[in-house]
Amino acid sequence: MSGWHGWFTIEHREAHSQARTGRLATPHGTVETPVFMPVGTQAAVKTLSPHELRAVGAQIILSNTYHLYLRPGSAVVAAAGGLHRFMAWEGPILTDSGGFQVFSLASLREVTADGVRFRSHLDGSEHLFTPELSMAVQRDLGADIIMCFDECLAFPAPYDAVAASVERTTRWARRCHRAWREEGRPDRQALFGIVQGGVYADLRRRSAEALVELDLPGYAVGGLSVGEPAGLTVAVLEAVVPLLPADRPRYLMGVGTPDLILEAVWRGIDMMDCVLPTRMARHGTVFTSEGRLTVRNAAFARDFRPLDPACDCYACRHFTRAYIRHLLKVNETLGMRLTTIHNLRYLHRFMERLRQAVRADRLPEFRAAFYAGEG
Amino acid sequence: MSGWHGWFTIEHREAHSQARTGRLATPHGTVETPVFMPVGTQAAVKTLSPHELRAVGAQIILSNTYHLYLRPGSAVVAAAGGLHRFMAWEGPILTDSGGFQVFSLASLREVTADGVRFRSHLDGSEHLFTPELSMAVQRDLGADIIMCFDECLAFPAPYDAVAASVERTTRWARRCHRAWREEGRPDRQALFGIVQGGVYADLRRRSAEALVELDLPGYAVGGLSVGEPAGLTVAVLEAVVPLLPADRPRYLMGVGTPDLILEAVWRGIDMMDCVLPTRMARHGTVFTSEGRLTVRNAAFARDFRPLDPACDCYACRHFTRAYIRHLLKVNETLGMRLTTIHNLRYLHRFMERLRQAVRADRLPEFRAAFYAGEG
Ligand SMILES: [Zn+2]
Ligand SMILES: [Zn+2]
Repeated sequence: MSGWHGWFTIEHREAHSQARTGRLATPHGTVETPVFMPVGTQAAVKTLSPHELRAVGAQIILSNTYHLYLRPGSAVVAAAGGLHRFMAWEGPILTDSGGFQVFSLASLREVTADGVRFRSHLDGSEHLFTPELSMAVQRDLGADIIMCFDECLAFPAPYDAVAASVERTTRWARRCHRAWREEGRPDRQALFGIVQGGVYADLRRRSAEALVELDLPGYAVGGLSVGEPAGLTVAVLEAVVPLLPADRPRYLMGVGTPDLILEAVWRGIDMMDCVLPTRMARHGTVFTSEGRLTVRNAAFARDFRPLDPACDCYACRHFTRAYIRHLLKVNETLGMRLTTIHNLRYLHRFMERLRQAVRADRLPEFRAAFYAGEG
Repeated sequence: MSGWHGWFTIEHREAHSQARTGRLATPHGTVETPVFMPVGTQAAVKTLSPHELRAVGAQIILSNTYHLYLRPGSAVVAAAGGLHRFMAWEGPILTDSGGFQVFSLASLREVTADGVRFRSHLDGSEHLFTPELSMAVQRDLGADIIMCFDECLAFPAPYDAVAASVERTTRWARRCHRAWREEGRPDRQALFGIVQGGVYADLRRRSAEALVELDLPGYAVGGLSVGEPAGLTVAVLEAVVPLLPADRPRYLMGVGTPDLILEAVWRGIDMMDCVLPTRMARHGTVFTSEGRLTVRNAAFARDFRPLDPACDCYACRHFTRAYIRHLLKVNETLGMRLTTIHNLRYLHRFMERLRQAVRADRLPEFRAAFYAGEG
């Protein structure tokens, strides 16, 4: 791991908060943090080409190990020369461990000491995911950042269940760490540990301390955005972040609305991902500088303004709300593409402004303006 | 109509066939003929942006009056400033009359002397389409080329039914002509008549002669590609084209495979449209310089070549068959977009080569090479 000391450079610490700006140096380029990562579940961010992703300002994208393991299979991706070449995205990629989907999508699962036996949500075929298999699949996919195989419980979960789950996740993290060092590509793929523990501060501490012992290239906060109230998300974050090494990137999994991004960055988070902005877009709801707008609504049938007059994205430069509403109503996929481009551009501009506010030590002013509806 | 004399310029007549190259001068730019027109049924060519259409070489697109009349309604399109501005396509547009869809999609239709009463295929609402309404809707949509409202029968249809249908279509064409001149935009929209008559040579002659009397800016051959064998399509074409004025553009409706395009151009056709190339693409079948290829097939799971190594389209420059197959299998719309871009680029390059062959008086050589599998 000594190779990972210094791969993350902190450039500025904001004066009034725990926020910081920095840079992650990956084999596929440098990422400015704090960063939002769009989700390309099946080796594509739904409806977009990699060139459109680049155009909205995406620096790094996330893809899902569970989905790619089932289709097209990691051997196909490996034969293509890895996920970057397979999907023609030349920037950095992060793959998750498969754990979240195994526990949320698959059926008939059985958790053993070895791993998780489950049936595919697609065809019912039986599979066994172990920490070692997750590492092998992620090695074949070839992402720049890979994640330890973890167990993620839904909210609410009783204390004893969470405690057992943290024990298991810790043991699995040690096995992932060993597999990564001995059979992986520890020179080119940064392994992140995932802190679990639900909403229980002592379990979060136990999880974090065990993972920090492994001296990993980065750390994620998992098990949030699983149904708990937003206030609890922030409280857990405040408890966990101080337990993580200050010189490693911190990744909050599953968070991607502007308000939670802002609160997470305030508390020292460097990386985030979420399907919500793209899923919302496909359902016809877009972020704008004046709040959310459901462009599918009849109110926009003759609204010939862009989605957001303040936006510089492809959708806003060329098309009107009326046209995009029409496309969504008649199920033309161009409509979902345009709203997706817009929402991702909106979030990436939001991140740019957020990084500027951190660098200028003006995060309190940025937050006040955001909540006053000027954000 | 005198304004339409000279709007179509014939540049070259091929030495061995009836083929010719020419130019259509429209208010939204010049079209080189022979031309293939992609179909944008609902104010979008499915999966594509207008900029992607431009990039594949599209010169003029077709959109459907019936669909736009129902959704979003021609008043919305008119309020947007017309179809060009509504969909952000700055090139020429042709709209059909609505007749074909009224007779093929709508239900409970009743043909009266006045027009056709039908129920929407979407919500069952009742509508009456008349020649005058078709002209008014097409005027509001604002296309560069508009079509007379016609009746199109399925194949096979008995002689008496076709004869009655030709009578009706002729009467409706006269009403369209009057409405266009008196309430339309005869200065900016070119009205085409549609020759009907099924596979009956005398009915085709009767239809053509009545329409030619109206001295319209252009003429279409309708009622083909409705289920008849390809040999009959060509035979009807050979009978009809000589009946049309040589100095007006000739449009064969509903034809868009390379072999039929070639045969139609050979016989003097200048314009064609068809949903087949884009529909095929969405189902995973692409044209290549070595024949058709169904990229969805398992055979391509590890084929890391482009769809067609001889193609210069966006899909072929950046993506492999294996990746596109994966996208199609997992229902990522990017897959359909890439196959659509490829098929349209393939057809537009085919048209470019066809025009070159006409200009060089080498159409027989082009045809021989095409059928020898080198096309
Ligand atoms: Zn925008
Ligand atoms: Zn191509």
